[in-house]
Amino acid sequence: MAGDLKAYLKEQRELVDAALDRFLPSDEAGGPILKAMRYSLFAGGKRLRPILCRAAAQAVGGDPDRVMYCACALEMIHTYSLVHDDLPGMDDDDFRRGVPTNHKVFGQGLAILAGDGLLTQAMVLLTDPKAIGDLEPWRALAAAHLVMRAAGREGMVGGQAADLLAERQEPDLATVQFIHALKTGALISASLEAGALLAGGDPEQVTLLSRYGRRIGLAFQIADDLLNLGGDAATLGKAIGSDEARGKMTYPAVVGPAQARETGQRLVDEAAGLLEPLGQPAWPLRALAAYIMARSH
Amino acid sequence: MAGDLKAYLKEQRELVDAALDRFLPSDEAGGPILKAMRYSLFAGGKRLRPILCRAAAQAVGGDPDRVMYCACALEMIHTYSLVHDDLPGMDDDDFRRGVPTNHKVFGQGLAILAGDGLLTQAMVLLTDPKAIGDLEPWRALAAAHLVMRAAGREGMVGGQAADLLAERQEPDLATVQFIHALKTGALISASLEAGALLAGGDPEQVTLLSRYGRRIGLAFQIADDLLNLGGDAATLGKAIGSDEARGKMTYPAVVGPAQARETGQRLVDEAAGLLEPLGQPAWPLRALAAYIMARSH
Repeated sequence: MAGDLKAYLKEQRELVDAALDRFLPSDEAGGPILKAMRYSLFAGGKRLRPILCRAAAQAVGGDPDRVMYCACALEMIHTYSLVHDDLPGMDDDDFRRGVPTNHKVFGQGLAILAGDGLLTQAMVLLTDPKAIGDLEPWRALAAAHLVMRAAGREGMVGGQAADLLAERQEPDLATVQFIHALKTGALISASLEAGALLAGGDPEQVTLLSRYGRRIGLAFQIADDLLNLGGDAATLGKAIGSDEARGKMTYPAVVGPAQARETGQRLVDEAAGLLEPLGQPAWPLRALAAYIMARSH
Repeated sequence: MAGDLKAYLKEQRELVDAALDRFLPSDEAGGPILKAMRYSLFAGGKRLRPILCRAAAQAVGGDPDRVMYCACALEMIHTYSLVHDDLPGMDDDDFRRGVPTNHKVFGQGLAILAGDGLLTQAMVLLTDPKAIGDLEPWRALAAAHLVMRAAGREGMVGGQAADLLAERQEPDLATVQFIHALKTGALISASLEAGALLAGGDPEQVTLLSRYGRRIGLAFQIADDLLNLGGDAATLGKAIGSDEARGKMTYPAVVGPAQARETGQRLVDEAAGLLEPLGQPAWPLRALAAYIMARSH
């Protein structure tokens, strides 16, 4: 990873962490539900979606700090989906990012509610007049709408349902692409669109970043699946080969690791190419695209 | 129940049912997740929250049809909360409104996702430019914000968490009131506030309807608990005495049935009194207050 990108990601991650702590502060009076929400929110995420949202605002010439509230809402939505995915009724995972999953610490009931709490808190934030400030109300509404569509039945919820139903089925490429597009691609793409839209981007810029997002979203999933297949348990923070053992339908499982790697590389090259018209302010997005497949080696 | 109110509730319920069917239409391509969402959404609810939202719009001199999208979002939020409450990790109920609960039909994984899908769909609807139409954007944002706060950690999610933690504890009145206010009262109150706000109500009218809402919300819960204690299983649609068996902290369990009935009656009398300034257009809300405790006999 280029030194510039590494420093940028570290700086952005720290800014996002600090903002998340302001938007969902620790409070003894908040009781176990707030503890459970914060436990997963601060369990060491890469903050990819918030960083993409902020980088998109910068790429269209806007101020990343003006979209921080939306960036934090995106991370809450991402975290809620992990908490629910890990439940015994879903993927039944005991560890995530090297620490026990929410329900292993707080029990199933509170874990379900912690997920619900993070999802509702995201929407509270996306519609908060104080957070929106002097952004145009129609932009705030449109951003909230596209983020929630990406989170819902037409996005993550639909993808997770398709994933659940596809377990133990014969893998096929169309199904894998459909699941990835909904489960991971939709929110990553929405992160970029919302950032650009809120920062005053025009429709062409928003569309361009959406197309970039769909490509890197799929590439990220392929890289993750390649890591799960042959990576290192310490880096991954969960059991190696766990997808395989569960009969999960992954990209490498369908087309083989070599072909998967080739597709991933093509996607990130295309994604980087799309950013041409945005020039220098889009450099972090360009560097990030180059980094995605590199980390899977 | 007065004939007028009965006819009004039936007519409103049919209008809301038809609108819900438009906002979440049946679609073979939607797969099992859409089926699971619609299963619980159309499992025979009273549509109380949507009707309150529409009645509040009417009470401030506005058009109930303009707030229908919000009314339907409220029912989706209510339904999501029931689906998650019934899960084995929470209340572990097999029946609801006389039919098998979502997870008994679709399995735990899909039931969790159906709840998530209904909650996100509600937010999609609350921020949908087509649904909002020519309502002022700031009103749409403010309505979405207050509804989501009522659904989240400061409302239903917080109340459900407190309820979970209070099981098998020594019952006390302060805890019961806190749980009821958050778990049921918050969304009922928000239904009225959002309806009034979207329909152009002024701040005094919104506050007045919020206060009415908090009173009837608690009264509804007391009436429900009284029914669960001694009602008829066929009317109730679930096992009689199930709260008692589980050691649930209810109002009648803490102060006794007679005192609970007295408190409920005082609350609905106060609620009806609050509506004075709104005059004739508020008649359904006045009639509804009178009906709440009557049904618990």
